[in-house]
Amino acid sequence: MGAALDRLLGWLDLGGIAVFAASGALVASRKRLDPVGFVLVAAITGFGGGTVRDLLLGRTPVFWLAAPELVGLCAAVGLAGYFAAHLIESRFRALLWADAAGLALYAVVGAEIALAAGADPWAAVLLGTVTATFGGILRDVVCQELPLILRREIYATAAAAGAAGFVALRLGLPALPREAAFAAGIALGFAIRGAAIRHGWSLPPYRARAGRDYPDAR
Amino acid sequence: MGAALDRLLGWLDLGGIAVFAASGALVASRKRLDPVGFVLVAAITGFGGGTVRDLLLGRTPVFWLAAPELVGLCAAVGLAGYFAAHLIESRFRALLWADAAGLALYAVVGAEIALAAGADPWAAVLLGTVTATFGGILRDVVCQELPLILRREIYATAAAAGAAGFVALRLGLPALPREAAFAAGIALGFAIRGAAIRHGWSLPPYRARAGRDYPDAR
Amino acid sequence: MGAALDRLLGWLDLGGIAVFAASGALVASRKRLDPVGFVLVAAITGFGGGTVRDLLLGRTPVFWLAAPELVGLCAAVGLAGYFAAHLIESRFRALLWADAAGLALYAVVGAEIALAAGADPWAAVLLGTVTATFGGILRDVVCQELPLILRREIYATAAAAGAAGFVALRLGLPALPREAAFAAGIALGFAIRGAAIRHGWSLPPYRARAGRDYPDAR
Repeated sequence: MGAALDRLLGWLDLGGIAVFAASGALVASRKRLDPVGFVLVAAITGFGGGTVRDLLLGRTPVFWLAAPELVGLCAAVGLAGYFAAHLIESRFRALLWADAAGLALYAVVGAEIALAAGADPWAAVLLGTVTATFGGILRDVVCQELPLILRREIYATAAAAGAAGFVALRLGLPALPREAAFAAGIALGFAIRGAAIRHGWSLPPYRARAGRDYPDAR
Repeated sequence: MGAALDRLLGWLDLGGIAVFAASGALVASRKRLDPVGFVLVAAITGFGGGTVRDLLLGRTPVFWLAAPELVGLCAAVGLAGYFAAHLIESRFRALLWADAAGLALYAVVGAEIALAAGADPWAAVLLGTVTATFGGILRDVVCQELPLILRREIYATAAAAGAAGFVALRLGLPALPREAAFAAGIALGFAIRGAAIRHGWSLPPYRARAGRDYPDAR
Repeated sequence: MGAALDRLLGWLDLGGIAVFAASGALVASRKRLDPVGFVLVAAITGFGGGTVRDLLLGRTPVFWLAAPELVGLCAAVGLAGYFAAHLIESRFRALLWADAAGLALYAVVGAEIALAAGADPWAAVLLGTVTATFGGILRDVVCQELPLILRREIYATAAAAGAAGFVALRLGLPALPREAAFAAGIALGFAIRGAAIRHGWSLPPYRARAGRDYPDAR
């Protein structure tokens, strides 16, 4: 990878961290956490996807251990959320959109890094999807919220589509500038997820037609 | 390890992935997820244990990033679950048995890989147990189900017994063919877990006789 | 690092494992688990923070795969909890204090190891905080308890303060013996967390003043 692409990847990573950190702060506001809790959940959400990606690929020490400016970014976003989240009219709606932006960014960044590491196209799409979704999963699991990914909306689908579009352009049209492939993949993922939020799109959920389900054994 | 053993390990891994993926699809049916949710939960469950094992041992990039056929297997099992889970009379019972098969397979595979990495026998048994149980733990945590491992049944015990039996045979009877040790360990783990399911066996749960417990502070 | 410091770090790690394992056993008693469940939750809690630390830094195989005595320690603490937790008058209070001791120990151990790995001071404080808190987070997530870290008390703050005090002493007063910096950092973290437990100290939680919150979409 050239230096320019590295810089571009760095900015995309930064953007993904910032919007996921903001989504973490919004969940922290729902949980009425203290300022430190805001910073911690912002950091877990902002760093979660990229950390899982780096661990799966063996890229250690993970990126944020060498990037104090990213630590500062997460802390600043977390504190901004603590002092300003009440100014937002609908925190759940803001969370959905911040999460959607992070999802689209990380799906493409994760797929690119997987491709660069020599992964198969299918695996790159899966890795992009997993890394795009794990920041939010960690955020929701730690905060004991029902993961956004399990709500009946097009979610992982959007991440997979963005990653797949990006991978298809990179491998199918190698003459296309990388920046264009990045932009197209991000736009595709964000458009699908955004349309799903605006119009309530969803894939048909599973419907039991026969069969006994779980006992409520808790 | 010879090529034949590698192949055998590969098949056992494949079997563990398939049955754990099926257990993931069954939990996805309980959660009424969409097809993509089925595939994602199937993949998290199918790859979870092996991924934790590889991360703990430092074997990265993790195995499935170089094995698109495994990605396809998880996707196929997940989609099959979406279209066919309603045909199963008792999904909870099917989940228990698929989970039991995955548990027995992964306990032995995890222990073998730990031994090959030079781990102490005790640590190999523990690693086998942890890797056999973490796919299911991740499945249940992500889906916000009460982990099977916390239900009052013999569960981790069966994984530990299978792994311990396998390790004992490998180290105590080095003349025994490895395939026999594999088979014995898997059979032992599956027999104990299966008997616990059929007969409702359990170890005595902890009973408070004195002492104040948690406040319900939630 | 000299051999003496390695030994000291080893003892601190051991202490952190033992008290976190005890906190795991106390949560297992709340969940009425069987003896194997006690051992498993004790091990997840005792090894969790150090395992996350090692994975983030790329120190694999993780430490406990080469340390069967630590496996034995966790098993012994878990079984002791199974047979003796009912003798403790207030298990929740005991859990708070065991967790506080683990928090203080691991914050400093994690920060030291991050410094030794060349991390930036800010990152070392964050890594100390994350590793001090992740054993407890894993314990609570696996057991489906509301994480202690989300209760409205000074928690991560204490870990961050202990780690920051330690890092400040190590870098600001290099002439100070390392043992003194360890002791000061541990004492600072434990004093803050302990005072918060005794006096009910907390940082002001976030209060919504405007804005619609989440729908209860579960």
